[in-house]
Amino acid sequence: MKIVGLGPGDETMVTTQVQHVISEATDIVGYIPYVKRIPERPGLTLHATDNRVEIERATHALEMAASGKRVAVVSSGDPGVFAMASAVFEALEAANKLAWLDLDIQVLPGITAMLAASARIGAPMGHDFAAINLSDNLKPWSLIEKRLRLAGEAGFAMGFYNPRSKSRPHQFARALEILREACGGETLISFARDVSKPDERITTVTLNEATPEMADMRTVVIVGNKDTRRVGAHVYTPRYAPDAG
Amino acid sequence: MKIVGLGPGDETMVTTQVQHVISEATDIVGYIPYVKRIPERPGLTLHATDNRVEIERATHALEMAASGKRVAVVSSGDPGVFAMASAVFEALEAANKLAWLDLDIQVLPGITAMLAASARIGAPMGHDFAAINLSDNLKPWSLIEKRLRLAGEAGFAMGFYNPRSKSRPHQFARALEILREACGGETLISFARDVSKPDERITTVTLNEATPEMADMRTVVIVGNKDTRRVGAHVYTPRYAPDAG
Repeated sequence: MKIVGLGPGDETMVTTQVQHVISEATDIVGYIPYVKRIPERPGLTLHATDNRVEIERATHALEMAASGKRVAVVSSGDPGVFAMASAVFEALEAANKLAWLDLDIQVLPGITAMLAASARIGAPMGHDFAAINLSDNLKPWSLIEKRLRLAGEAGFAMGFYNPRSKSRPHQFARALEILREACGGETLISFARDVSKPDERITTVTLNEATPEMADMRTVVIVGNKDTRRVGAHVYTPRYAPDAG
Repeated sequence: MKIVGLGPGDETMVTTQVQHVISEATDIVGYIPYVKRIPERPGLTLHATDNRVEIERATHALEMAASGKRVAVVSSGDPGVFAMASAVFEALEAANKLAWLDLDIQVLPGITAMLAASARIGAPMGHDFAAINLSDNLKPWSLIEKRLRLAGEAGFAMGFYNPRSKSRPHQFARALEILREACGGETLISFARDVSKPDERITTVTLNEATPEMADMRTVVIVGNKDTRRVGAHVYTPRYAPDAG
């Protein structure tokens, strides 16, 4: 069984090893919009499921792999970054079936949204950085606030996944407040929506200028460190840090 | 001009857009071992330079692009992660030439070593994480110590680039000490050497069992968080964090 990353959306950003796995699979398992990216062909069954059923989806994939199918679990971006790889291993542990531990499970990486966005912006993650999932579905919001403060204190550039949803509209406003305190209001923040897709839209402002409406669930947000700057149309973080912060 | 990522070493982990850029380039610029990965062909000039001359290399690439060449600057992994993208923008800023600001400079991402290693290990970066370059060439060691402590306090999984070199053998031992204090000695640490290459070697131990000799400059080191665990041959970090840390 393979757990593969499809990258952010542009089909030319898929690795050839992932393309090969998809061409050989008998069964594709994943969230509806990612499975939609796989071309139909004879001998291939597509199993598309809704959001928030990751463990059921992973268990189904393991069952099919145990029965001899060539299963590919597809994620957007990289399966190891806020995607299906951890869910499959959680399901494997929870199932507690000895035979499943012998399954050949391989994770094949893809271009994760944060680094695809970084490339389009310039090089904002060019120095030490942190990646944080801002959704509080699976962890308490207080832990997210703590991590934002500590990442700011450390001087990390930051990439945020799932910055804002309709079910929790106030949290991203609170995140911006914490970031202004921890990083300073002149720090640059970029909003990258639909990266590498036809409707891609990228905006860079200062934290002081940033408003919660600039992000939604299709946006990756990148915050620089205090040295992040513009040169021409590009935003980059220098490789050097001259002092101890 | 394109700044492209070749991924960690396996040619099937290159994206098709990067393969296309290389096939169309007139000039390839990069560090010797990465330029060696590019096949020679008529009409293509390879410009391979030594380590630690990133700004000279970037300036040369900009000069050639300004003179009309189709230049590809190649990095291993992802050019935006401790690689050439920031160096090119630093060189662009330092050159202070108005005409160069109009150059079409694009960064094309690749699979970065940390995420390639993570995939081979299982899913150790499956929750919030930090990426830290442990080399003190361009920043003070005291800042690295501070970042290790804060990342541990935040409960980030961590990926380390350039963990250990002959010129600074004691620093990685000190990093392991700090990590034991900040994360706890039972936290899992993985050493991934030559990821995706024929001599790939991956070892996972606890921080208490880890020794400095387990890393060298060809190793990416990954430290889990307190929930990181083994299931069968895999190491993964769950997506959830049940408490505020």
